[in-house]
Amino acid sequence: MGKALVQNASRIIDENARDLNRAKRSGLSGALIDRLALSQPRIRDMAESLFQIAKLKDPVGEVIETVKRPNGLLIKKVRVPIGVVLIIYEARPNVTSDCIGLCLKSGNAVILRGGSEAINSNIAIFDILNKAASRHRIPGHSISIIKHTDRILVDELLKQAALIDLAIPRGGESLIREVAKRSRIPVIKHYKGVCHTYVDEGAGLSMAEEICFNAKVQRPGVCNAMETMLVNRRIAKRFLPSMIRRFRDAGVQIRGTAEVKRIAGDIRLAKEGDWYEEYLDLILSVKIVKDVDEAIRHIMKYGSYHSDAIVTEDRENAAKFLKEVDSACVYVNASTRFTDGGQFGKGAEMGISTDKIHARGPMGLEELTSYKYIVYGSGQVRK
Amino acid sequence: MGKALVQNASRIIDENARDLNRAKRSGLSGALIDRLALSQPRIRDMAESLFQIAKLKDPVGEVIETVKRPNGLLIKKVRVPIGVVLIIYEARPNVTSDCIGLCLKSGNAVILRGGSEAINSNIAIFDILNKAASRHRIPGHSISIIKHTDRILVDELLKQAALIDLAIPRGGESLIREVAKRSRIPVIKHYKGVCHTYVDEGAGLSMAEEICFNAKVQRPGVCNAMETMLVNRRIAKRFLPSMIRRFRDAGVQIRGTAEVKRIAGDIRLAKEGDWYEEYLDLILSVKIVKDVDEAIRHIMKYGSYHSDAIVTEDRENAAKFLKEVDSACVYVNASTRFTDGGQFGKGAEMGISTDKIHARGPMGLEELTSYKYIVYGSGQVRK
Repeated sequence: MGKALVQNASRIIDENARDLNRAKRSGLSGALIDRLALSQPRIRDMAESLFQIAKLKDPVGEVIETVKRPNGLLIKKVRVPIGVVLIIYEARPNVTSDCIGLCLKSGNAVILRGGSEAINSNIAIFDILNKAASRHRIPGHSISIIKHTDRILVDELLKQAALIDLAIPRGGESLIREVAKRSRIPVIKHYKGVCHTYVDEGAGLSMAEEICFNAKVQRPGVCNAMETMLVNRRIAKRFLPSMIRRFRDAGVQIRGTAEVKRIAGDIRLAKEGDWYEEYLDLILSVKIVKDVDEAIRHIMKYGSYHSDAIVTEDRENAAKFLKEVDSACVYVNASTRFTDGGQFGKGAEMGISTDKIHARGPMGLEELTSYKYIVYGSGQVRK
Repeated sequence: MGKALVQNASRIIDENARDLNRAKRSGLSGALIDRLALSQPRIRDMAESLFQIAKLKDPVGEVIETVKRPNGLLIKKVRVPIGVVLIIYEARPNVTSDCIGLCLKSGNAVILRGGSEAINSNIAIFDILNKAASRHRIPGHSISIIKHTDRILVDELLKQAALIDLAIPRGGESLIREVAKRSRIPVIKHYKGVCHTYVDEGAGLSMAEEICFNAKVQRPGVCNAMETMLVNRRIAKRFLPSMIRRFRDAGVQIRGTAEVKRIAGDIRLAKEGDWYEEYLDLILSVKIVKDVDEAIRHIMKYGSYHSDAIVTEDRENAAKFLKEVDSACVYVNASTRFTDGGQFGKGAEMGISTDKIHARGPMGLEELTSYKYIVYGSGQVRK
């Protein structure tokens, strides 16, 4: 399937050009057009993702647990596919091939419903991959695409709880909220990442500076980038001036409290709404806190339970933070940017779940499976 | 808390009497009144369940998986509570204490919303357990009960996706369907159990007879009892006459196909609707099938993906059945009646999930937890 993508790259690029033309005519933003645009290198990247997925261990059939009961029953908990997975996504055509690869590898059938902006690109990618799959005896209809982009079809799909086992919306927060609200199918949600780094009084300050800089600047447009930096009052005067200078030199706009402004000079004052904001940009909220408890309270109030870090050499404060911050991924002395299926050793990912049901944090192949119990007896009956 | 139940049994029985009086005046069925009625022995059973739960291993904090990454990051996947669990149930007051015990032991806060029929019993049980919990420094509001039984409050609760993490309806199918339809909170569903036993041509016939008899007769009113028996044509004439005689002697009404009738004599003919039916009673549907494939097709068409068994000494047919029947629990050579948290070694159970998301089959303490990733670094940043 990966090879078929590369071999048919020019057809994909032609269909993508139709989407791009329409997008430009309808005045789509530059950022969205960039997400939509495909090129030979981008198609090679899509193929490379499929090659990577192909190499991963097959999760289906894995025995998760074995229990031998006193009555002789042998109970095996075995990983099985979920069944039919519906993916609802927006303008990124690479989602089409990634999701086909991940669902197929985990033994699931997949129904794709991408945004109208990318519909020609998506249909071309689907068609190429589906034909390659059929040639290798993947059962028909294992991969399906919804070619009509009317919204009403999504509503109908989301009612088919008897036919579809799981819905995964991939895209902006408003898409996800809409799907979650209307679906009768279980939904795994990937809401925003309002990620924090708390620089504790026990932090090594040069390590803290490297971690915070990386978490904000290395790739600001993604959900695991830091949006708010919390700094312990006792080290604020030693830490903040050089840290903020470095951020400014990298083009980061700082929005801080009055206390931060007194220490760091000319910054914008943060408004209440800033603490909830996922900027996805070179903007950072900064606040000074009394201690680890105040940091935890801030994160639990304003955060999105995605990824949050403490920088400290103090074991007690680290333990408290790791225990009490109820986020999918909590870090001590590392950048929040590591919240990623590849970085976690999962090989590939469907996204980062901010849910607590079924899958939390990076969703790899295992998180796209369910399980069943296989029970081996020799005539046992219940007394 | 268990001791407090026993010590206050007479208060619970007084409140239960109020519920019973109202139930009798309003003409509730005998079966429902039996479920509602509490007595000293039943209250001791409720207390005993709590003592059992107390003895179970604490699931919270368990390290499920540890990964050391090449960059030195140490990633621990750790079991954590889900958060706030809403239980919606019907007329059985013992659900009140069971759910409080299971949720508390797994670190979750619980909101109970029981049926109006048992409201006085439920409030008494809640009040006794909640007071005992407070005396032992369980945080306030860890256990809550909805004292008003207006339906509209349930609708409001099911919209509180920001405050409640999981809804578990316990009761009849219509209650569960209503909750699933209206909830914006993730729901784990416990639908009906239309359980099958398939007697293969390779079955030891006396073992098959014991297993089928147990699966139907030992306790017919529960979800893991057999509702349909499928028999391979090649052994039907040897197996069915004595099997059906034994069922009849135990008071089981047989509903079979014309072919079954020819072999087993005077039985009722099954209608199409019978194959979908969860009788929960001494009634059994019987069908003769050509082979294991036809048995699997029948089960996947009419079953409820709960518990299904094959009786056979043929390894190939057993393997095929275990692989292709997509039910929560699949058995070879044992009674479906073993689908139960206690029988599976889980110690206690919240019910039997027929869902494939988050929890499938018997739900014990582990299934009432989520997880988070704790990542230990030494200054790692993303390249």
